This record gives sequence, structure tokens and C-alpha cells, in this order.
Amino acid sequence: MHLIDVQSGLLANNDAVAAENRGMLAKRGIYAANVMSAPGAGKTSLLERLLPLLAAKFRVAVIEGDIVGSADAERLAKLNLPVEQINTGGACHLDARMVHHAVHEVAHGPAEVLVFENVGNLVCPAEFDLGEDDAVMLLSVTEGHDKPKKYPVMFRRAGLLVVNKVDLLPMCDFDMHAAVSAARDINPGVEVIRTSCRTGEGIAEVAAWFERRIAAKRGRAAPPAKG
Amino acid sequence: MHLIDVQSGLLANNDAVAAENRGMLAKRGIYAANVMSAPGAGKTSLLERLLPLLAAKFRVAVIEGDIVGSADAERLAKLNLPVEQINTGGACHLDARMVHHAVHEVAHGPAEVLVFENVGNLVCPAEFDLGEDDAVMLLSVTEGHDKPKKYPVMFRRAGLLVVNKVDLLPMCDFDMHAAVSAARDINPGVEVIRTSCRTGEGIAEVAAWFERRIAAKRGRAAPPAKG
Repeated sequence: MHLIDVQSGLLANNDAVAAENRGMLAKRGIYAANVMSAPGAGKTSLLERLLPLLAAKFRVAVIEGDIVGSADAERLAKLNLPVEQINTGGACHLDARMVHHAVHEVAHGPAEVLVFENVGNLVCPAEFDLGEDDAVMLLSVTEGHDKPKKYPVMFRRAGLLVVNKVDLLPMCDFDMHAAVSAARDINPGVEVIRTSCRTGEGIAEVAAWFERRIAAKRGRAAPPAKG
Repeated sequence: MHLIDVQSGLLANNDAVAAENRGMLAKRGIYAANVMSAPGAGKTSLLERLLPLLAAKFRVAVIEGDIVGSADAERLAKLNLPVEQINTGGACHLDARMVHHAVHEVAHGPAEVLVFENVGNLVCPAEFDLGEDDAVMLLSVTEGHDKPKKYPVMFRRAGLLVVNKVDLLPMCDFDMHAAVSAARDINPGVEVIRTSCRTGEGIAEVAAWFERRIAAKRGRAAPPAKG
């Protein structure tokens, strides 16, 4: 956050809009995940592998956040899923207001699952609730095992930590035990799945995690009122 | 940037403090570089290799920016250089005010070269001048060659683009030509050096680049007034 003096007001305002977004999605029983990571950790590559698995069972929509351009949205549009591109115009994260209109459109469409792909950044996206059910973060092994201690807000917020690019582990100094321990020191309940978007390792596990979370949301939803 | 409505005022204020920082450094003839990249691209690893080469010829000081903790400062302190740790308290970048006191201390000490290691972030650090002479950015090949188009402000600002982790090129889909072309589309004058902080490839070239820039600054400085 840039501005300590306006930070609390800004976040309170964001939380109010995020609550509206969450309410719109809840009314339609739509599950939403906010996918975050540093630049180049593999968010789009993960979604290219993951979304076809989810789309076999659910109607999936994507809201894609980038500072400029639509390169990632074009990659994901090849999956024949509805993808809405949001350009943040320089902002280093999505916020609830930026996605509000797109969430409204999704909530009035056929989607059952909504995935936000956030701007590549390990800092600010973690502070801005979009109205999602779960925060999913990627850490690529090439970034180093010291990241949980350096970017604790993101690691604290994640419900799922995807440790990506494990195909490169033999060429890196990455200490998986140290990384996972540090993440769990900050966030004891975080689930951890190791993936390689190159080999496909772990992708089915990530899909299974999403399915469990979608089922949990549906289980939590109030049963329809009886006549 | 978070707040479109206050952005221009915030940056104008930063620029004023950056100008003060630059003036303090200029008065002592101290060259300063601001080293930036995404998290885990190898800023600290580069400095661990580079600073001993520079320290053989110049007195070097470091100002280290992190959101929390002092892990990187502790790594660099092993080089027996003065390292000042700045914790941004959640902010996703250093700004001129945060480093102002530390720059003042450096300007009144023996240093000839000052290196800022910024917070790991490809977005906001590029917008906040600290008072440096040069912006140096790292892109690691594991992040992908699409980054210049997605994070143009950082690539536009860099005087030197260090393409790091080239030892991993055989295992990555990174297209060096595409990355460098895209960077030069945005910033035609940018110098590019390929490095591996693991093998040491390219580090001497980076040191030589710094030496040229330090010499250029000294050449530009007004000659001492004659009696």
C-alpha cells in the first residue's frame, strides 16, 4: 500500500464493494477464486491446464487482470471460455470496484465458477478482496524458498499454495521443506500442491481441490425453502 | 498506482524529495543505481556477485528495501559493506521519502557508489524515483519473454536490463530474441546483459557497465574551480 494515511479508508471502501460482489455471486451460487502470484510464476499456464478440467464439470468464466494489453486473455480465450479483460491502467492489482461490472455480468450469466487472474504482484493484490471465496497463490521454485517470510500478507491470505515449476527443482537451490514450513508458520491451514505446468504434474490435484471447494460452497448454501 | 485521483500529487511530491536526494548525492559525487525486478528474479544474488567486484575499486554502500525483515540485508552484510535496511511496512516499493534519511547518511559518509535494492515488484517501484542516476532491472528467463509488453513502465525506465538465470535457458521456453526486441520496442536505448548468478556468466560485464556509468557521472561533474 502506498498511502498509510488513506490506507484504512481505501481498504474499507474496497471491502464494501467486495461484499457487494460476493453477494451477487452468492445469490447465484457461483464459486469464485482469486489467483495471484509474482510475475511469471505461471498463473496463465496453470489456468490453461486447469480450466479445461473444471470446464468438463462446471460452466467457467474468467476475469483477467493486467496493467495493459490482453495477451493472457487471448491465451485463455482459446479454451472457449468467456474471458473478460480488465486493464488496471497502471494499478498494480485488481480491486473490487474494477471488477464490479464484470462480476455483475458473470452473475447474470450461466457461469458456476469464476476465476480472477490477478496482476502479477506478490504484494498489493493480497490486500484487496474482490469478493472471492478462495485466494489461490502460486510460488514458482525459481523464485526461491525465502518468499513466505518476505511477502507474508500474500502467504497468510492463500487457501491454496501452488508450488509451480517443480520440473526445475533439480536445477534450483529451492528448499521445498523450508518454503512449506515458512508458509505454514504464517498460515497453518494452507493446503500445498506441487505442480509443473510443463509436465502436467499436480494439475489434477489442483482441479480436485477446486472441486472440493465448489462442493463445500454448495453444501454451505441454504437448502431451497420447502413449500 | 492505487489511486488515480491522488496519483499526480503523490508522484510530484516524490519527485521533489527524489530531487533532494539526487542533490545530496551529486554534491559528494556519489553514483547511485536503483535495482528492481519481480520477486525472486535474483537482485540479491546479483549484488552478492557484483558488489565485491565494484568494492575492489570504489567504496560501496547499499540501501536495502523489503516489506518486512532483513534477510537480504543480512546476506549483503556478509560482504563487509555498509547496508541500511528499510522496511516499507507493507508498501510495495521504496519511495524517495523512505530512503531520504539513509541517503543523507550515505552522503555524509565515505561511499562513492550507492546501490538501492528495491522491493520485489515489476510495477510500482518503476514509478518512484529515489534520486538514483540509473535504473537497473532484472528479468529472469523463468518469468517468460512476454514481460516487457505486460510491464512496460519498468522496462521503459531501465538503463540496463539484466536477463538473469540464463543457465536455465535450456529448460525454459524463453525466447531471448522476442524478449530483447520487446524491451527495445519500449526502450530503444536499453543495454542488455545476460547473466547467471549461479555460474557467474555476465557478472563482469555488469561490473564493467557500472564502471562506465560511474566514469560518465564523474566526467559530467563540473571540474573543480581553478584558483
